[in-house]
Amino acid sequence: MQFYRRWSRPVALSFDLDDTLYDNHPVIKRANVWMEDTLADELGQRINWTIYKNKVLQHDPMLIHDVTECRRAWLSLGLKTQGVAHAKERANELMEAFIAVRSDFSVPERSHQLLAKLAQRYPLVAMTNGNVDIQRIGIAEYFTHIYYAGGEYRQKPYPDLFQATAEALSLPPEQIAHVGDDPHTDVYGALCHGYQSVWLNDRQSPCPVHLPHVSVTDLAELEALLV
Amino acid sequence: MQFYRRWSRPVALSFDLDDTLYDNHPVIKRANVWMEDTLADELGQRINWTIYKNKVLQHDPMLIHDVTECRRAWLSLGLKTQGVAHAKERANELMEAFIAVRSDFSVPERSHQLLAKLAQRYPLVAMTNGNVDIQRIGIAEYFTHIYYAGGEYRQKPYPDLFQATAEALSLPPEQIAHVGDDPHTDVYGALCHGYQSVWLNDRQSPCPVHLPHVSVTDLAELEALLV
Repeated sequence: MQFYRRWSRPVALSFDLDDTLYDNHPVIKRANVWMEDTLADELGQRINWTIYKNKVLQHDPMLIHDVTECRRAWLSLGLKTQGVAHAKERANELMEAFIAVRSDFSVPERSHQLLAKLAQRYPLVAMTNGNVDIQRIGIAEYFTHIYYAGGEYRQKPYPDLFQATAEALSLPPEQIAHVGDDPHTDVYGALCHGYQSVWLNDRQSPCPVHLPHVSVTDLAELEALLV
Repeated sequence: MQFYRRWSRPVALSFDLDDTLYDNHPVIKRANVWMEDTLADELGQRINWTIYKNKVLQHDPMLIHDVTECRRAWLSLGLKTQGVAHAKERANELMEAFIAVRSDFSVPERSHQLLAKLAQRYPLVAMTNGNVDIQRIGIAEYFTHIYYAGGEYRQKPYPDLFQATAEALSLPPEQIAHVGDDPHTDVYGALCHGYQSVWLNDRQSPCPVHLPHVSVTDLAELEALLV
């Protein structure tokens, strides 16, 4: 454990889910393989789905904030383009199945134990940019509120989920500590919106520091650097 | 001047505009006052325009990436709600006038001189999240390409403007140095997308470092911290 800023005991905690409370990498990899195989079986060939994903994002860039709707949209467009009848309905079914596969894993016992202990002392809020089914993975009970990016909420590090949490808890942000693994969405997001930030660094990564290559104090210095 | 990362002489440069090549604070303040006064005169009262801004952003959150269209949309909605006839056309006129007021200033001579010198040695690209009329302020001639956030391009630090620039220049991003004052949109944005980053820090600010309050290497440490 390493302290970088003045820490004061928080009144409430917010938690990122994927890769913070469990290792999401093998889970999402398996779910993606399941989806690709299912689609290849159905269509009799492997399609490059990235072009459909790019197309729907070009048409509606806000889908970047909603992983479920984004995937549903590219599935629907791709299936339709491939001549599948009732493409939209099939996309809905596939998304439901995908979320089930993507949520079919066990949260480590130590996460359960920790959440149970913490929930006795702090209101806990879950906030995720992903689409795991938190009921299905059996940890919903620990949280007083659960927020997913999507719909009206843009993804972390945008303010939406942080503001919704602080409002729901009726707490000033500095009394909330956000726990997450991602240097940008979790650490930078928490700091931007006044939260205390607990960075879960379980891979011995160097501390994320966004230093420029060079700073200049005026444009004259820029000339000295470049001309 | 201070070096934080290994610097190699770039092949091309990209420039933020507002607060990098000129002080935008008094300019935008004056333009906002002009807009508020004009609207108050026209309507015979002062309106809280923030509610209209919030409404249009709620309806179309992507407008956050397009300051001109966002302002045009909330003006149009507000004027319409206030019973103004031809609200949309009036909003268009007001926006045209706003951009003229907002672009009615002189870029400092030293910026002209610097840009002229740099343009002899490097392709220069302008990329801005704002809506200054770069022709009107008389610096368009220095740039081979000019990119505004909005339309198909999301704001910095999103990849859109950085990618468009690298593609237009046919250069790998590491051969481009982006010059800007904003720690997030300019410094973090440039680094995220592989550019070299030149941070213009003309206010003696501390170097922007997004350090968490505390890092933990596993969830057990979190328990030690919190329970």
